[in-house]
Order: sequence, then C-alpha cells, then structure tokens
Amino acid sequence: MTQYKFKTDEVTDYIAGYDLEEAKKKLGLRKIIKLASNENPYKTPPGLIKVLKKNLKNVYLYPDQSYKSVKKAIADKIKLKPSEIITGNGSDEILDLIFKTIIKPKDKVLLFNPSFSVYKILSEVYKTKPIWINLKNFQYNTNNILNKLSNNIKLIILCNPNNPTGTYLDKKNMEKLITRLPRQTTLCIDEAYFNYATALNFPDTVQLFKKFMNKKNIIVTRTFSKIYGLAGLRAGYAFSNKEFIKILDKIRIPFNLNLLADKSIIFSLKDDKNTEKFIKLNMENKNFFYSQLQKLNLSYIPTQANFILIKTPLPGKIIFNKLLQEGIIIRPFENPELKNYIRITIGTKKEIKLLIKKLKKILS
Amino acid sequence: MTQYKFKTDEVTDYIAGYDLEEAKKKLGLRKIIKLASNENPYKTPPGLIKVLKKNLKNVYLYPDQSYKSVKKAIADKIKLKPSEIITGNGSDEILDLIFKTIIKPKDKVLLFNPSFSVYKILSEVYKTKPIWINLKNFQYNTNNILNKLSNNIKLIILCNPNNPTGTYLDKKNMEKLITRLPRQTTLCIDEAYFNYATALNFPDTVQLFKKFMNKKNIIVTRTFSKIYGLAGLRAGYAFSNKEFIKILDKIRIPFNLNLLADKSIIFSLKDDKNTEKFIKLNMENKNFFYSQLQKLNLSYIPTQANFILIKTPLPGKIIFNKLLQEGIIIRPFENPELKNYIRITIGTKKEIKLLIKKLKKILS
Repeated sequence: MTQYKFKTDEVTDYIAGYDLEEAKKKLGLRKIIKLASNENPYKTPPGLIKVLKKNLKNVYLYPDQSYKSVKKAIADKIKLKPSEIITGNGSDEILDLIFKTIIKPKDKVLLFNPSFSVYKILSEVYKTKPIWINLKNFQYNTNNILNKLSNNIKLIILCNPNNPTGTYLDKKNMEKLITRLPRQTTLCIDEAYFNYATALNFPDTVQLFKKFMNKKNIIVTRTFSKIYGLAGLRAGYAFSNKEFIKILDKIRIPFNLNLLADKSIIFSLKDDKNTEKFIKLNMENKNFFYSQLQKLNLSYIPTQANFILIKTPLPGKIIFNKLLQEGIIIRPFENPELKNYIRITIGTKKEIKLLIKKLKKILS
Repeated sequence: MTQYKFKTDEVTDYIAGYDLEEAKKKLGLRKIIKLASNENPYKTPPGLIKVLKKNLKNVYLYPDQSYKSVKKAIADKIKLKPSEIITGNGSDEILDLIFKTIIKPKDKVLLFNPSFSVYKILSEVYKTKPIWINLKNFQYNTNNILNKLSNNIKLIILCNPNNPTGTYLDKKNMEKLITRLPRQTTLCIDEAYFNYATALNFPDTVQLFKKFMNKKNIIVTRTFSKIYGLAGLRAGYAFSNKEFIKILDKIRIPFNLNLLADKSIIFSLKDDKNTEKFIKLNMENKNFFYSQLQKLNLSYIPTQANFILIKTPLPGKIIFNKLLQEGIIIRPFENPELKNYIRITIGTKKEIKLLIKKLKKILS
C-alpha cells in the first residue's frame, strides 16, 4: 500500500492539558477549574467578546488573504514594518512553518530539556538530528549553549520565559548568545509568555532584532492564547527579517489566520488597559501562590510566566489524578526528570485558595 | 546567511478573490457584491450565528485537542467511524498534511489543468515532479487519466466538482479510476463543492471509499467554507482509512481546528433544513443565471457547483476591472488558457440581476 514518510511511533504525541468539558462529563461535576494549559483565568475581556460578536456577521467571508490590516496593527504596536510580520493559526503553525522553510532531514536542531514539547515533535516530523541541552537546575546556562554552537546547527528554539519551568534567559546572556550566533544558524525565540515577564533584565527582543537584523537570523514567535484570552481562536504572530517573512508567507496555506482571530488581534493590541491589568493580577496572584506553597513546604521554581513548576513529594501523576477527582485540572509530565513535578497555571486568587486547600488535603 | 529551502519565485502565489473590505476602501463604495470566492451568498444561517454567540464565552480555552466530539458528529453524519476522520484549519490544511505525510522531493503528483491553484502551490512547496493532465473541453477524460497512471505516481488530486470549471467526474468513471488505481498511489478527491452537485450520476465517495477501503488508498477532503457559510472560520475535514488518518493526525499541529469552528461543524451537520434550502436556491439561481447569460449570448460551462465559468469576448481581467468599478467583484485568471474566461459565484437572484445589468453595459 501507500508508503508513509512516518511510522506512528516515530513521532511523539502532543499531550494537551486535560479537557474541561471531558472532565465535566467524566466526573459528573458542574464546576471544574482548569489550571493545566495556562489560559487566562480571567477569560476573554468583555470588550473583545463584543468585537467578536460584531464580526460574526462576516464569518461567511474568507479573511483578507494578505492580512494587511492585522500585520499593520502588529507592526505599529511593536514598531516594526508590516513586511517583518507573519500571522498564524497559533504560534504553533509558525513554528511548523519555520521547520518547513529551513529544515532538511538530518539537519541539526538545538533544543532544551525540559521545554515545550511541540519543538521535539516538530524535530521528529522534520526528521532532524536534535542536539539536546539539559537545563541546569531548570535554568538556561549560556556557557552550555555557547559550547554547543556550531556552523552546522540549522535552528535553535529557545522558549523565553521557558515552558514548563518559568525561568528565562536574561538580556545580557541573550545578547551574548546572539553575538556568537553563527550566520548559518537561525535562532527562534518562542515568547508565548513574554507578556507576563516582569524581570527588569528580561530581554527586549524587538530591540535585539533591530540591532542584529542585518547580521543574524532571528525570529520571535508570540501568541494571543495566553494574556489575551484567545486560546480557542488560534492566533499567533512572528517577526523576523523581511526575506525570511516573505518565504514563510509564501509557504503557508491560504487563509491560515481565521477572520475572527484577525479582528481580535487588531482589537487586543490596542487594549493596553486589560493587558496591564492581567499582568498586575498575575504578579499579585503569583506572590500569593508562592506564600501558600511555602506554607505547605512545597518548593517551586520562581517564574516569569503565568504558571509555576512545583516539586511534589508524590509523583505528579498521582497528584494530578487526586486533584482531578476534586475538580481541579493541573499538568503532570511524561518526562522522567519531571516525575515529581507538576505545573499549575496561576489562576485567580479564589482558584489558588481552593487548589491549596485540596493540595493540603491530598498531601496530609 | 541562512539557507532557505525555497527561493521566493519557486513557489506560485496564491491569488485570492479580491477582498471586500479592501474594495470598499479603494472605491469608496458602501455596498460591494463579492462573487469571487464562492462563499454562500445567503451568508451564515442565523441558527449558526446563535451557536457561535453562545460559545464566545469559551474562546479563552483551548479546543479539545482530540477533537472527539466533532469527529463523532462527522462520522455519524456520513456513517463512518471517528477514527476515519480528521478535521483541519480549512481543507487546505489537510491537503498540505497529505503532502507532508506522503510526498518526498521528486515524487510524481498527478494534477489537472485548470483546477484549484493550491494543488500546484503544494506541489511546488513539496518539490514534487508534477504530471499535468489538461482537461478536454474543461471535462475530465478518464482514458487520459488511465493512460497516465503508473506505479510511480504517489498522489493524484482530483477536484470534484472541479474548480474553476464546475465539471465533474461521474460515478462510473470514478469507480473505473479507483479500480485501476495502483496500490502505491493515493487518490485525493477534493469535494469542496460536493454539496451543490445534484447530477444523479455524481459519485458517492463514502460508498466508494467503503467498497475499496482495504485495497485502495483514497482520501476525500471537504469544507465548511461554501454551503455552510463559514469561510472565515476555517473548518474542513477529510475521511480515509484509519491508518492514514492516524498518521495525518499525529503530524498536524496541536489545536489546528479552532474552538468556534469545532462547535460550528457539530451544529451545521445537523442543520439539514438550511443545507437543503441552499442547494435548492443554488439550483434555481443557477438556472436563472444560465437563462440570463444565454440572453447576453455568453457561453458558459454547465456547472455542478455554486459558480459558473463564463467565456467572455474581452479578456477576463478587463471585465474584472470594469465590474469592480461598478461594485461587483468576480474572478479573472492568471492561467493563459483562461484569459478569456471569468468565474462568477452564483449569488442571490438580486445579485445575479445586477451583475447581468452591469455585464450588459460593459459588453455593449
């Protein structure tokens, strides 16, 4: 029969956060708290819901295939040119397009462990030779990265702040890495969580991109699935040099960004009030979460994102199952190094209180 | 610098129907009629708009990554198994996934001319060796296809009814083609417009798939962009044998179908009343359109879809520009063989009347 390029066991399954509706059905509970996929616990802002409602009358039409208005809105916001922007069906689609545009089988791709599982899946789908760097105490170590750099590395994917650790590569070290980046190597910085990063030395990648744009190949991906409350609509973008963007834009399927996502991006980027509010709430709730974890004597990794990686005395999967019975979905790991860890989204204060109560019950 | 796998001129641009908002801005007109992209001229049914409204509150959540409910809804509707179904960001994404899963550079892909331009673009992106079959008087000719069949052809993409001709391969000839299909060759039937096909000998591909499923590799793609009035939301699906579907589902990016598209599919497939209404209206309007074209002495290709390919005494691009000035968007072609043709969506009766009036003015 047909020869497929893949055997099903050749590519790792993507394991999503346990589905809310599924959990409701399975447990017969009406209220479930999902702290597994780092969605915005305050949901989609009402102003954005209004914009979506207004645009429903147009969903019978295809989106504008050139994405002119949405690219301009993004470019204006981050002070780049529309020709330096591509939009996608979530940033995951753009990550896939990056592989599609530059990776040939057996090309070397530098990946970190632990990090977002999609990078590993893509490296399998595109049959690369992955070069792994293990984080040191869950932190990026620039010397480790610099030691692995070589002209033969086609692509580096660096998640900043990193999922699932919440740690980050700071400005100084990011610039050091970029300075040493071979000309043949593309650095992809996945900034899915950058909005939440409040550390003063968190890198400004737009500035770094501008500074190095003629010398280094850098692409930065971002998403509207987190702080903007739009995970369900699938909206992401990336910025890079216009040559790279032009090719990515050619290779993508037509109409990859849906019409509602297009309109939502334009609105969301102007909605600074809500973005700032959610950053502030995340910071407050994070500090509250930290203090509660300390009371429970649970150690955690300080985070620059909207989730916390927590060390547990029991295997994470056991905690996950017990919390699920209590109506709370969190995230355990398949990764053996993370067997005794769980990742929990920083929910609302009320959600954190309930979670801590249930955790206390489970661990006592 | 970075070596890209593509030069920008190596891949053909996808040319979308001229954008409605863009035309409004450019021409300063408040009302523009778009008959260029074969969207549903009766727009999205109110019942579906209601479902979308109801689900807006959940767009902060990721969709269910397993797409369990939507696959079951499709499977129930067409009497197949959920394991035989994949959903996608429009059927275009599934077409891309088919190439991604089976095509290696230099593989032979059988394509028809003229047909939907995305097939050619994908064959360039995946660096295939395309084998072209020219339609005879815009019709599929089975003997021509059978003569080109060989074990070395990896993939055939057959659009049925065909875009932009509106012609089709009938049941008998489709079965003949499938019977002769080499075991190594995958037949992809793109049924984007199948809902509109009312010819009694139009093939039932679900039945053909069931009959040949253990012997032949067939995949059928469908979309919600046309009769279901959902082009802007990007929703498509395909059915094939479960082995193929399993691999496609592994290779796709996570959350490829957005949450609103997911819910819309489930609703739309139950909304037989509207689907039947739109089929009936399309047929009535088509007959009216035919009669008006005959009065103008314009010849056209009889169609099984919701558009008509019309021969014009002037180059199509000139007609396009003149109609655009009058506030009507239609579709001309880059294709030299179609220089004197235009493709027009079968609009509402009112739209067709206005179009005919303007066409008469332009051609007199």
